[in-house]
Amino acid sequence: MTLLEETLQDIRPVAVDWLHAAERRQRELTKPAGSLGRIEETANRCVAIQESFSITANRPRVVLFAGDHGVCAEGVSAYPQAVTAQMVLNFLRGGAAINAFARTGGIELKVVDVGVAEPLPVSSELVSRRVACGTRNFCEGPAMKEAEMRAAVHTGIEMARDAAMAGCDLLGFGEMGIGNTTPASAITAALTSVPVEAVVGRGAGADDACLARKVSAIQRAFELHTGHLSDPLDILTRVGGLEIAAMCGFCLGAAACRRPVVTDGFIATAAAALAVRLQPAVVDYLFTSHLSVEPGHRRLLAIVHHAPLLNLGMRLGEGTGAAAAIKLVQAAVAAFTQMATFTSAGVANI
Amino acid sequence: MTLLEETLQDIRPVAVDWLHAAERRQRELTKPAGSLGRIEETANRCVAIQESFSITANRPRVVLFAGDHGVCAEGVSAYPQAVTAQMVLNFLRGGAAINAFARTGGIELKVVDVGVAEPLPVSSELVSRRVACGTRNFCEGPAMKEAEMRAAVHTGIEMARDAAMAGCDLLGFGEMGIGNTTPASAITAALTSVPVEAVVGRGAGADDACLARKVSAIQRAFELHTGHLSDPLDILTRVGGLEIAAMCGFCLGAAACRRPVVTDGFIATAAAALAVRLQPAVVDYLFTSHLSVEPGHRRLLAIVHHAPLLNLGMRLGEGTGAAAAIKLVQAAVAAFTQMATFTSAGVANI
Repeated sequence: MTLLEETLQDIRPVAVDWLHAAERRQRELTKPAGSLGRIEETANRCVAIQESFSITANRPRVVLFAGDHGVCAEGVSAYPQAVTAQMVLNFLRGGAAINAFARTGGIELKVVDVGVAEPLPVSSELVSRRVACGTRNFCEGPAMKEAEMRAAVHTGIEMARDAAMAGCDLLGFGEMGIGNTTPASAITAALTSVPVEAVVGRGAGADDACLARKVSAIQRAFELHTGHLSDPLDILTRVGGLEIAAMCGFCLGAAACRRPVVTDGFIATAAAALAVRLQPAVVDYLFTSHLSVEPGHRRLLAIVHHAPLLNLGMRLGEGTGAAAAIKLVQAAVAAFTQMATFTSAGVANI
Repeated sequence: MTLLEETLQDIRPVAVDWLHAAERRQRELTKPAGSLGRIEETANRCVAIQESFSITANRPRVVLFAGDHGVCAEGVSAYPQAVTAQMVLNFLRGGAAINAFARTGGIELKVVDVGVAEPLPVSSELVSRRVACGTRNFCEGPAMKEAEMRAAVHTGIEMARDAAMAGCDLLGFGEMGIGNTTPASAITAALTSVPVEAVVGRGAGADDACLARKVSAIQRAFELHTGHLSDPLDILTRVGGLEIAAMCGFCLGAAACRRPVVTDGFIATAAAALAVRLQPAVVDYLFTSHLSVEPGHRRLLAIVHHAPLLNLGMRLGEGTGAAAAIKLVQAAVAAFTQMATFTSAGVANI
């Protein structure tokens, strides 16, 4: 049995009894019932995941997966492909937005090269798991070989297992990959059967002509790969990305290790949606962070069955939304575990 | 000149030039222009407030003002009035939601008794600034004497000054006061001329009969106090609360000390709206945290001209929304000050 099959088998839905027990406990804490809104729901799901009232959110870790995209040859990005490697170097030096978010939030950051086109230096800060030098142009053939897709998914599973072994109680993930809103839009269209035009947005800054090239590239790919776009692993192989496959594996690995896992924006949620299609119980472990301005994001959130905790008009990726939402999950866990009860505090209840 | 008049004179709008300079700087940082959405706007306003690119958000402090309400005699709350004092004791022992939020978020918490009905023990954890043993029932006369209102406003100003002197770069505030959604709804109706029914909600858990009593109490008060509900200080005196007056003063004091100040929910925003009516430049220093489920909150947010950063279905108060939003402001400040530029990082820009 492969690591992927084993992981899929290890994922169990959370017990509804634990959810109900958490809801009852919330009503004993010194606040009007339900007055913390979605903060309460967040804590309750952590209780169900950890099967304990002594929930923890220690050592939060965001894992950032980087990969390049052959479809950039179709002119689908405002930025040149070299920026993927340049930004990975920026992550390693601590100069990107996610570095600032992680540093100020007390969140560990791991950067994983799953398939950046340009060579990257050996660094203790970089986890090198290069499956290929980027994907191939999916307008001309499959983005990956099946073996490459599986290797990338396995990388994600392993990164989740590593985090769980290291004592990280709360996980988040994000991505870097110039051009990757195009595969994410292709995945969204394939998963939802929504017309391509409705799920393609401007990414990092596409103008009208670039937007038209994105739509055209996906439409041509859908003709080329017709009949191979229903199974989630086939979708990944045909029109996905190495970092997207790794993030899909990360969601599966986190769920198998029973760790709450926080998504990021559009591209990360495309990976999460694929994971949910592979194993629906993944939804019990997923927390969605922010609502991206990318038009396809709402469609993906419908698949993962969660409303995002934040709506800040963000569209950066890198795990920045995950890092922001992790602070809310930690607050939810703190309130659940540290609050007095009406009885213990001598506060009158209604 | 009184402390209030002096404070009102000290408040200056932020310089638009600094806002524009911050926007230009954001475009140099290694991310697509505008891709951090409202996080960028938040940082830009901190730049304009601090008149520096080296903005800081160190030693964040939430100040929680507590007071009781004579209008509770009209049966406007699901909880008995004694719960105000009981919850203050809970704050001092660290057992409430705001304690958990502050602790996990690295935020200082100060609890101020502005006018709790029941006597509270002397404690180093409690700032005792008791102006009166709660307000009077505003259905029978003014909630406060003018001198009491001014003393409560001064308390808020002094708490903001104390925080600024202590090196707190980022402030938040919240409240505890059984029955205080009723004065907050009265203030909202007085400030907006919206019908009372449209700005009265269920607070901590009012049933239909309680809701009707809230509406009736405010309508009777409006008849009694007719002609005295246009000036913000008159509104406070007639239908306000001691903790609401203090929070209004806190907003003014924070703006005068040029500190970003984060509101909480419905009642805190009623105080902020009064501060804005007293001195419109206060809006430049205000950051709104979350959208309360109380129906009047949207009306108040329109007065303070800001959309809340969070929408989590919260309705607790205590400063919990402020504490949650403070983490986002800190992330915004960290990104602005710690990120590399396209030039310094050698990343290609468009």
